[in-house]
Amino acid sequence: MTPYDRVPDQRPVPAGTGLTLEDALPAPEMAEAGGVPARPRLTRTVAEMRSALRELVAGAADDDASDAEPVTVGLVPTMGALHGGHAALVRRARAENDVVAVSIFVNPLQFGDPADLEHYPRTLDADLDLLAAAGADVVFAPDVQQMYPGYPDAPIVTVSAGRMGEVLEGDSRPGHFDGVATVVAKLWNIARPAVPVLRSYFGQKDAQQLTVLRRLATDLDIDVDVRAVPIVRSPEGLALSSRNTRLDAAGLEHALVLSRALRGLADAAVAGEPVDVQAARRMVEDEPGVELDHLVVVDRDTFAELGPELLCQPLRRDALALVAAHVPPVRLIDNMVLPAAQD
Amino acid sequence: MTPYDRVPDQRPVPAGTGLTLEDALPAPEMAEAGGVPARPRLTRTVAEMRSALRELVAGAADDDASDAEPVTVGLVPTMGALHGGHAALVRRARAENDVVAVSIFVNPLQFGDPADLEHYPRTLDADLDLLAAAGADVVFAPDVQQMYPGYPDAPIVTVSAGRMGEVLEGDSRPGHFDGVATVVAKLWNIARPAVPVLRSYFGQKDAQQLTVLRRLATDLDIDVDVRAVPIVRSPEGLALSSRNTRLDAAGLEHALVLSRALRGLADAAVAGEPVDVQAARRMVEDEPGVELDHLVVVDRDTFAELGPELLCQPLRRDALALVAAHVPPVRLIDNMVLPAAQD
Repeated sequence: MTPYDRVPDQRPVPAGTGLTLEDALPAPEMAEAGGVPARPRLTRTVAEMRSALRELVAGAADDDASDAEPVTVGLVPTMGALHGGHAALVRRARAENDVVAVSIFVNPLQFGDPADLEHYPRTLDADLDLLAAAGADVVFAPDVQQMYPGYPDAPIVTVSAGRMGEVLEGDSRPGHFDGVATVVAKLWNIARPAVPVLRSYFGQKDAQQLTVLRRLATDLDIDVDVRAVPIVRSPEGLALSSRNTRLDAAGLEHALVLSRALRGLADAAVAGEPVDVQAARRMVEDEPGVELDHLVVVDRDTFAELGPELLCQPLRRDALALVAAHVPPVRLIDNMVLPAAQD
Repeated sequence: MTPYDRVPDQRPVPAGTGLTLEDALPAPEMAEAGGVPARPRLTRTVAEMRSALRELVAGAADDDASDAEPVTVGLVPTMGALHGGHAALVRRARAENDVVAVSIFVNPLQFGDPADLEHYPRTLDADLDLLAAAGADVVFAPDVQQMYPGYPDAPIVTVSAGRMGEVLEGDSRPGHFDGVATVVAKLWNIARPAVPVLRSYFGQKDAQQLTVLRRLATDLDIDVDVRAVPIVRSPEGLALSSRNTRLDAAGLEHALVLSRALRGLADAAVAGEPVDVQAARRMVEDEPGVELDHLVVVDRDTFAELGPELLCQPLRRDALALVAAHVPPVRLIDNMVLPAAQD
């Protein structure tokens, strides 16, 4: 049995959704009630979105008038073309907050190649079905001129991810993380004045993006709680990705080396033993059908690479082991936290 | 009589205050009541500042329980060493808001030269006296590690002023406007979740800074109302500046050419006539004792320079005429709005 066999594929799936499709089905309580979940409210402008959030927050406060806790809003930024990974983010936000908001915006600032941007899938109707099932209350789906009035001459003032945007995934995509940080800062700032407590959800799979956005909140003092949703893995350990569907059975077997190599590093860190990155790299390089791009250990807060002198002793701070490799015809990424040694 | 003679200098002035010293005196209503104005509350951390703002907002709401209008907060960012120009900003904020907050932070990110940073005057005690007189409720005076934990390795994620930060005053000060935009974004974001309506006050004198900060608010969707306080001029037209005190009587006379040249352009714009920048430059260059640095007309929203083809016809959008010149031993700047032609 290959990881691919684990993917349920017997049930009808909303168009435009992806691999972990069970996430796209109605949440259990809704399914039991037998009704079709209501679509979230769709807003197109900053003013509409703020107004909708204020109404939803006021409504949640009324529903919970006996509760002294402030109303919380969970925001999930997306570029649409939603699949099960997004549904998992939205469900997590639903479980933890009074109000759930999702943004759908294909952000031109984070694309290097205009053709990529042009061909990026836009599937709003299917997205709204998926979000209804996952329990979103409101969707913010602005057009480019609403987000960047005057584009492409604007924006002029933007967010820079600094040196964190220039390494690893950022090295091959100049400006990508600046674009991500700029659009997420805007989305947070759009929501912020309309909500008492703001939380925002991102997948741990895109570890560099997650770290950049945590630093965005810290470095610019944006009052938002950034929450990471863990990587979903097959029972054999493969990080789920819509790209996995393009691998054949042999490729899916070979791809398991990525999580195996990371797991070895994480186990060593947990045991307080030296973290042998060279051995992990050799493990990946020795796997047939896999071309290693990079396998590195970085500081979790700065994405600075940790050299041998720091890895030969117990870790003082949480680190991240990152791997990227080509398993033709796709490029896969994965990561695991290497926890700091307990004193 | 020279402009310098217009400066009142007969009354005692708080130490560390500057030219337009009447602004530093107690506000009339306080002086009439005969009391010494209370010093503003001093906060040192982000948490203290947000907490103080929440208390002040709640207090203002209680005071005005019959008023359905939301409580407004006016924030004046400064680097301390306050003088009458700052007092004018604070008084304007006082007149327009329920709560007035002032930040005092010598921001290392906006200094190019470490020696400049080190020698920048720090006069907190005198600053608090001036702010008491001007009517501030709360002061936020963090240290560098509070604003940039981990400095100088942090911040990593910052704000970029883009092409607006690279021209004119930014051309000779690389990174200056990025540093200004970063610290002001933080200050706004610190205040934002604690206040219903946020306004922030800056002098029109620093026109490029003002435009960068207006774009910061717009481009990153920060919900703040940026308000400009007009340039204070001597009756002859000289823009007041603490640097004027270093000019002799002849220098003060010569310096009048700057505002005279700008006024000529503004009058032409108001009349819907062509704006002759070359003539204005010649006027400044022909003045003895004045070395022109630049005199340009820029778009008010982008700081892009307007060429002759746009200046020979009525202006379609508001523009700014900017001048910088050396009047030994100082460098002076001034600017005026050139309003768009009425249709």
